[in-house]
Amino acid sequence: MPGRIQKKLADTLNQQPLADFKVGVDNVIFSVDTAQNRLLVLLVMRQQEPFLNYWGLPGTLVRRGESLEDAAYRILAEKIKVKNLYLEQLYTFGGPSRDPREASDSYGVRYLSVSYFALVRFEEAELIADKVAGIAWYPVKRVPQLAFDHNEILAYGHRRLKNKLEYSPVAFEVLPETFTLNDLYQLYTTVLGENFSDYSNFRARLLKLGFLYDTGIKVSRGAGRPASLYRFDAEAFAPFKDKPLVFI
Amino acid sequence: MPGRIQKKLADTLNQQPLADFKVGVDNVIFSVDTAQNRLLVLLVMRQQEPFLNYWGLPGTLVRRGESLEDAAYRILAEKIKVKNLYLEQLYTFGGPSRDPREASDSYGVRYLSVSYFALVRFEEAELIADKVAGIAWYPVKRVPQLAFDHNEILAYGHRRLKNKLEYSPVAFEVLPETFTLNDLYQLYTTVLGENFSDYSNFRARLLKLGFLYDTGIKVSRGAGRPASLYRFDAEAFAPFKDKPLVFI
Repeated sequence: MPGRIQKKLADTLNQQPLADFKVGVDNVIFSVDTAQNRLLVLLVMRQQEPFLNYWGLPGTLVRRGESLEDAAYRILAEKIKVKNLYLEQLYTFGGPSRDPREASDSYGVRYLSVSYFALVRFEEAELIADKVAGIAWYPVKRVPQLAFDHNEILAYGHRRLKNKLEYSPVAFEVLPETFTLNDLYQLYTTVLGENFSDYSNFRARLLKLGFLYDTGIKVSRGAGRPASLYRFDAEAFAPFKDKPLVFI
Repeated sequence: MPGRIQKKLADTLNQQPLADFKVGVDNVIFSVDTAQNRLLVLLVMRQQEPFLNYWGLPGTLVRRGESLEDAAYRILAEKIKVKNLYLEQLYTFGGPSRDPREASDSYGVRYLSVSYFALVRFEEAELIADKVAGIAWYPVKRVPQLAFDHNEILAYGHRRLKNKLEYSPVAFEVLPETFTLNDLYQLYTTVLGENFSDYSNFRARLLKLGFLYDTGIKVSRGAGRPASLYRFDAEAFAPFKDKPLVFI
């Protein structure tokens, strides 16, 4: 049983003083470069200790009078310009010694991280570089060792993104308004990995759901037959909005 | 855009001192009384201010050297005896002024709550009453005004439970080892509410999934034909464990 503790230890801990915390927010912002089929995550290079010059998730510490969510939006407003960015809470990481700033005195202040998650449209997002801080869309497959436990937070965010693609129409928020079924398949493959489904099963499944509207327009890309352009039919999807549903 | 703040305000907040926090854990522990088709939540009566004599979720403040998860298991070990209790993190509530202990000085220490979630088998769970503290399985439909923002945390937990029933085989962890399809339907109805599905659709869906093993035994309950007893076939389910799937 993970994390379960003995009654005796519990009694001892009940006598311990309360821990003091600073609370940080860290944002896992994903984007998909559909032209190159790459899943990207927004990273910034740290300009201060600890982890000076390491890449990390864009984050900040919560100020007096500020909600967790406001802090998450505040740091993003400094790093990226994008329409309709909607953050959702991911997970809270708060074990002792997750931050080296605690190490000099293990009974001192602890640092807790509440992480937030978003998926933004690659073409619409504009990174804001200030004078000093590095910032980049990093391919998730090539992310280096990050500051703190940010690799773990990123991995958690990646799992959430996969889940959302499986259970919700989030893909249509990052695709262009019209797309081919192959575009859609490439997006799913980019996030979920190869072999999540073969193309013909995926195609049959998506068409059967009835949320894809055939615009009647066809496009030619490279060799092969011209492919139909579809758009997501939000009206047809509406009755299913709160129903459990699998997209793949 | 919820919670988004202006650049100007962001700059101002950047100058603000960091907030100081105490961190609490609050557990939303559900159980289903299958005999009476009631969804229950574990509540304790508070023995101290603030919210003296209010019911609330069992919680505690995190001690020095203690992880969030250990704190959540510590308070549960004091309140309930149950086999194989597995907690999962639910959500973190941390806005300013969610706790009246902050009110006397709004620039003082803030109280953040990391909530955890579990579903336990009603028949196996044994409540631990100490000398003073009240404790009860409360029907979710009749929960009164709780301490702090615990009604909101409970509502969030209820949504998570519904989701888990829709997308995972969690129902079979709370049912007896063998059950009729009607028992299963009643459990789903108790958690999801009436009209989530009619019985014959539900029955057809569950049988089609292929995870229910007909034991060949039949039972009679009240009037009507004897009903078959099923058990959940974990082996048949294994290949689908990490696949997206809808149970209703």
